Amino acid sequence: MNIKKLLNSLKKIKDNDQYTIEGWILANRGNEKIRFLSLNDGSTSDNLQVVIKGKNILDFKIDKINLGTSVKVSGALILTPKSPQPIELVVSTLEIINTSDDDYPIQKKETTLDFLREIPHLRHKTNLFRTIMLIRNSLVFELHKYFQENGFINVASPIITSNDCEGAGETLEVNNPNNKNDYFFKERAYLGVSGQLHAEAYANGFKKVYTFAPTFRAENSHTSRHLAEFWMVEPEVAFANLNDVILLADNLLKTIIANTLKNYPSEMKILNDLKNGTLIPTLKDFINKDLKILDYKETIKILEKNKNMFEDQNIFFGMDLSSEHEKFIAEKIVNGPVALINYPKELKAFYMYQNTDNKTVAAFDLLVPGIGELMGGSQRESRYKKLEQRLKELNIKQEPLQWYLDLRRYGYAPSSGFGIGFERLVMYVTGISNIRDVIPFPRTPGGIKM
Amino acid sequence: MNIKKLLNSLKKIKDNDQYTIEGWILANRGNEKIRFLSLNDGSTSDNLQVVIKGKNILDFKIDKINLGTSVKVSGALILTPKSPQPIELVVSTLEIINTSDDDYPIQKKETTLDFLREIPHLRHKTNLFRTIMLIRNSLVFELHKYFQENGFINVASPIITSNDCEGAGETLEVNNPNNKNDYFFKERAYLGVSGQLHAEAYANGFKKVYTFAPTFRAENSHTSRHLAEFWMVEPEVAFANLNDVILLADNLLKTIIANTLKNYPSEMKILNDLKNGTLIPTLKDFINKDLKILDYKETIKILEKNKNMFEDQNIFFGMDLSSEHEKFIAEKIVNGPVALINYPKELKAFYMYQNTDNKTVAAFDLLVPGIGELMGGSQRESRYKKLEQRLKELNIKQEPLQWYLDLRRYGYAPSSGFGIGFERLVMYVTGISNIRDVIPFPRTPGGIKM
Repeated sequence: MNIKKLLNSLKKIKDNDQYTIEGWILANRGNEKIRFLSLNDGSTSDNLQVVIKGKNILDFKIDKINLGTSVKVSGALILTPKSPQPIELVVSTLEIINTSDDDYPIQKKETTLDFLREIPHLRHKTNLFRTIMLIRNSLVFELHKYFQENGFINVASPIITSNDCEGAGETLEVNNPNNKNDYFFKERAYLGVSGQLHAEAYANGFKKVYTFAPTFRAENSHTSRHLAEFWMVEPEVAFANLNDVILLADNLLKTIIANTLKNYPSEMKILNDLKNGTLIPTLKDFINKDLKILDYKETIKILEKNKNMFEDQNIFFGMDLSSEHEKFIAEKIVNGPVALINYPKELKAFYMYQNTDNKTVAAFDLLVPGIGELMGGSQRESRYKKLEQRLKELNIKQEPLQWYLDLRRYGYAPSSGFGIGFERLVMYVTGISNIRDVIPFPRTPGGIKM
Repeated sequence: MNIKKLLNSLKKIKDNDQYTIEGWILANRGNEKIRFLSLNDGSTSDNLQVVIKGKNILDFKIDKINLGTSVKVSGALILTPKSPQPIELVVSTLEIINTSDDDYPIQKKETTLDFLREIPHLRHKTNLFRTIMLIRNSLVFELHKYFQENGFINVASPIITSNDCEGAGETLEVNNPNNKNDYFFKERAYLGVSGQLHAEAYANGFKKVYTFAPTFRAENSHTSRHLAEFWMVEPEVAFANLNDVILLADNLLKTIIANTLKNYPSEMKILNDLKNGTLIPTLKDFINKDLKILDYKETIKILEKNKNMFEDQNIFFGMDLSSEHEKFIAEKIVNGPVALINYPKELKAFYMYQNTDNKTVAAFDLLVPGIGELMGGSQRESRYKKLEQRLKELNIKQEPLQWYLDLRRYGYAPSSGFGIGFERLVMYVTGISNIRDVIPFPRTPGGIKM
């Protein structure tokens, strides 16, 4: 039984129940007569207090135990409802597996996030990164669970594609390392930037599908919100329109965030304290508030009226909203989550459904206070002719996408979907402001650590 | 309520309950007075029989409905316990969403798997591929569920690494497409062949972790068992030895296969019929039999005694077992699943724990009747000096792996783990013999379809 399960079953524990646990030592305090070890086993951010008394201190070489030491301990559980920790373990046997060398870089004194980014193989041994990665894991499983319980089929979209059309220059190319001109796949191959087009093929047949896979972008930006390698979650639903998937997105996010708050109270408290108590209220607010839906056209009018609020005061229909505009709408106008819909088609991808006004497409971006855009999606263009026409307008070659157009010719059920940048979601739920801190081994231009 | 849920809740259904369903038409039979449509919605391999009578046939343009047509139908459910299908839907309204063009390649008459491999965007609309992909989805979720319920943390090992040491020439390189000599990551970058080393870092801290991600191999082989892009599942457990993870592998496989048999009876029946009724008995046999553990040394003695059974009769300690040897052991000697352990170190990777005989390492391969090797793993070398020495012997540069060696210096808890080639597992459970048929969009040398 790991520490998380132990702490969740305190009511079943009686004093002097025998318990054995393995883990790592985060503190070794006390004197010659009594010692207190903080032990963590990775199942939770909560530590177990381990007590060693009298002769045992010498017998088990407790003085040797330094930060990070791996141990196996057995003893009697004692409930301590009046202490800060609800239970402790009084040791009867203790085995030191391995101590840490003196240059162990994880120390009790505070270290900077920058420093920790240099040691991605060790930083999860800090309280903060342990907590972040536990929440990340919760969100991974909650996503799978939500989709599976709601009849979605997981689809492995291919990572390697022949298609770089979504944004030339932003894709990474895959080569035979021994001879860069000998194409392993007999043609130029790229790392996918999205699994959506392939997911659409599978939605037509399975009706509700989702991908959950790494995607890649060669964007040469060094911001706190971009990675060259990140995970995407892309649900796609046939027989569904824009409104259907906006409701899906809203329900999905509310469910997985509520479950994470419920199942990881200690971790969420740590993160909440870091944000001076604002994180949990923000998330609860998100869960409790109805999602507002606002037309892009209306949004422009609102921004126009308030343009003296912005650095960029050039507001017009057709403009791409900047981060300050998005945050203003979510925070000052709606004061809650909002789906902006019906963007000008020039701002969006070729496959989005063209509205009857001939100007806009049935797309949405979901904005939330504090972070801005969390995800985006659309209803897909279901009409073969419209899609063909749009490719021509945008000068995109049709031949490599013919299979995608052909979906429309064989009993096509119009579909809609959206993409969640998974690390953005983890940032939102943990309140962590740099994307490099929510993925174990971040990949950014200019360096591959480990 | 999708068709799978409907069929699972027959006991709650009463005649004339109203029901609305969307899906695709797989058959349109009957005459001018009564029509029978087979409708599938992707939730199961079972179809719903839809009945249209009299004037409705004309009113709803049933004659227009061809194979693959997408429809939305409403009507009354009628229980038909004496018919081949337990329930049918008598239509009151029917809406044709889209019909299929005449060249729709999925027809009732049989097509070859080879032909279907040319149309990966459509082949899931056949009964066979629908069934395979439903079982694939079941295994995806069962794996996540098993790990999460047993306290494992999902870890995103990086896909892009600087490390090609596992097998030079078998990795794919990642480049900036616009300038192959301008390294986007400032050094040569490769697509990972395994997430194991990084998972080990996280096991030391979280104790039980797993990866589930795509991996890549540039092997130029055109067999029915190799892909350039495939998914791997790699659990890693700290404080665990070889025997612990063999037991984990056995329990994991038995659990997820048993749950899939239970939750997907219709799909497993279809696949079982394809294998003349041998698939389900083989899987049940696997679930019910205790896993045998057999030493490599013993295995060589057994093969030696039976060498006239083999094409390759050169049997000696140190040899790599070929597929015929592995199948012989699993099928003729053990007649069930078997873990071969303690392989000669020359056959295995640098990171495996060196046994005291100085010849073998604490590795295992899990063999099953009918397929041979299903997965492999090992206890990891926990001793810094031994690991350093082994790198020297194998002429592997230490510097890029220094972080991995350093794990041993900071409170290292010895760990063990294994890797499951996910598509191999899907092949085993579905009985499908070509790996290109168990992944939606297979990537192999020489071509990228879609």
